[in-house]
Amino acid sequence: MNLPLLHDLQLAAERIRPYVHRTPVLTSSSINRILGAEFFFKCENFQKVGAFKFRGATNAVLSLPKEDLLHGVGTHSSGNHAAALALAAKAAGVPAYIVMPDNAPEIKKVAVAGYGAQITFCEPTLAARESTMARVQEETGCIFIHPYNRFEIIAGQGTAALELLEDVPDLDIIMAPVGGGGLLSGTAIAARGIKPDIKVWAGEPQNADDAFKSFYSGQIVPSVNPQTIADGLLTSLGTLTFQAIRENVDAILLCPEHMIREAQRMIIERMKILIEPSSAVPVGALMSGPEKHWKGKKIGIILSGGNTQLNL
Amino acid sequence: MNLPLLHDLQLAAERIRPYVHRTPVLTSSSINRILGAEFFFKCENFQKVGAFKFRGATNAVLSLPKEDLLHGVGTHSSGNHAAALALAAKAAGVPAYIVMPDNAPEIKKVAVAGYGAQITFCEPTLAARESTMARVQEETGCIFIHPYNRFEIIAGQGTAALELLEDVPDLDIIMAPVGGGGLLSGTAIAARGIKPDIKVWAGEPQNADDAFKSFYSGQIVPSVNPQTIADGLLTSLGTLTFQAIRENVDAILLCPEHMIREAQRMIIERMKILIEPSSAVPVGALMSGPEKHWKGKKIGIILSGGNTQLNL
Repeated sequence: MNLPLLHDLQLAAERIRPYVHRTPVLTSSSINRILGAEFFFKCENFQKVGAFKFRGATNAVLSLPKEDLLHGVGTHSSGNHAAALALAAKAAGVPAYIVMPDNAPEIKKVAVAGYGAQITFCEPTLAARESTMARVQEETGCIFIHPYNRFEIIAGQGTAALELLEDVPDLDIIMAPVGGGGLLSGTAIAARGIKPDIKVWAGEPQNADDAFKSFYSGQIVPSVNPQTIADGLLTSLGTLTFQAIRENVDAILLCPEHMIREAQRMIIERMKILIEPSSAVPVGALMSGPEKHWKGKKIGIILSGGNTQLNL
Repeated sequence: MNLPLLHDLQLAAERIRPYVHRTPVLTSSSINRILGAEFFFKCENFQKVGAFKFRGATNAVLSLPKEDLLHGVGTHSSGNHAAALALAAKAAGVPAYIVMPDNAPEIKKVAVAGYGAQITFCEPTLAARESTMARVQEETGCIFIHPYNRFEIIAGQGTAALELLEDVPDLDIIMAPVGGGGLLSGTAIAARGIKPDIKVWAGEPQNADDAFKSFYSGQIVPSVNPQTIADGLLTSLGTLTFQAIRENVDAILLCPEHMIREAQRMIIERMKILIEPSSAVPVGALMSGPEKHWKGKKIGIILSGGNTQLNL
């Protein structure tokens, strides 16, 4: 299968520019002091729909030939990809069909419906999601957009790293969290393409360590019912993202569950920005890892999203 | 007593520029849609020490003659002013003496100590704070810096509004929360000076409505043991802030307690930024008030700070 190259990411950046936010890169002198390195946070929590997912979804929709878009686009998801695809379709003026498990959080249902998508609810199992999706596709003729294992999705997600490296060209290390691997693949292709000697690292929850196992064993090891508060990182690698990660990533670091909360709290309290638990995993992995090669380095972190509920 | 004029605020802005952050002005299309007006949020939650208070404290310290600074500066406070004065003194290389009630939150004690200030604890009553402060002044010779009822403090706090109006010159309305009135006084002097026809409104917790009562009765009515989650707005107006507010403010709007939380939650969830309850009071007052003259207008809001503890 074809992986996108740097050039494809650059084309994606041009294509989606009128629709996405160029998010800021923020720094925190207190976090730098606490951790002993220089951090640059790419704030995709400020992206439309509150997550980087809007980049890939927009690129996927805009890359489809007009005639394919006639019957709309669809996906099954309970999370940020559903909202992202719904809004991307709305911006392009095409229908979106979202299959959601009926136990999805109320806030997600409202968000997706608010973007004008047509929702079909199903039992909360992967089998039910896939069979319901197949039926919706049959009925509507919509194009299925996979949340991560797709050329245009990977290319779109990589545009966040392109912008980060434009703003801070001399990073030593770039890190993203890894779930299905769309963001990590795009980040790695962007970073390697622009700065071949950069280190590309991933952070993964210890309780959902399928990418870690896959990366170090050389074959895809799927997650089985992972239990983590990093609800954006529950999915397993796809064939395409596995290939991109094998070819372009240097290391996957695991983050114990309690360090996800600790890193999330530190970032929220020190930087006064809201991030979801998944976004905190790279920093949590650095904080908890035994090796501290990264001390004193310039480290870019993709803060993947800000969709989390608070107890105020 | 002398109130600062626009020119004094502009001098303060020059004076503090090397020390303070120029905070961003953020907008949210979803909040604009929900409320039906165009909002511009001046993000003082991103200011050093997490609140606008650092502007006034820095201006106060830098305005003192060198010989007065020899014995340092001091204040009694359990909140943001203590941290702000401690850091401003540290930046200027002079000692800071902070009197804090012994029941102050641990996080505040740690922050103030972290900036190198010398803390004296006392009973949590105003009488104990004032007598302890008097003793510390006698022992050290430090200069007492009042948290709001002081020319240089008001001038410093007004620099946030100067920046906001530089970024968005055509605001119809500008709003700040009101506690002791330092921020509101500075905001009003800045806005009136730059744009005489702008409306200057304040938001105040209904449960701490001393400024409302003072403004509409024409004489200072102190707060008596107010109970509100807006912990930055518990203090009563001073003579100087009362005068500035009478001369330059158009209206004070009250915010019921439950609307403080609702507005805080909306801003945090929609904008992905962390604000303390006090910062949400102006928006909460707009949302709950019976009059909706502000619909369709351009409204600038000073988000005063982001120091709040979260239950993650």
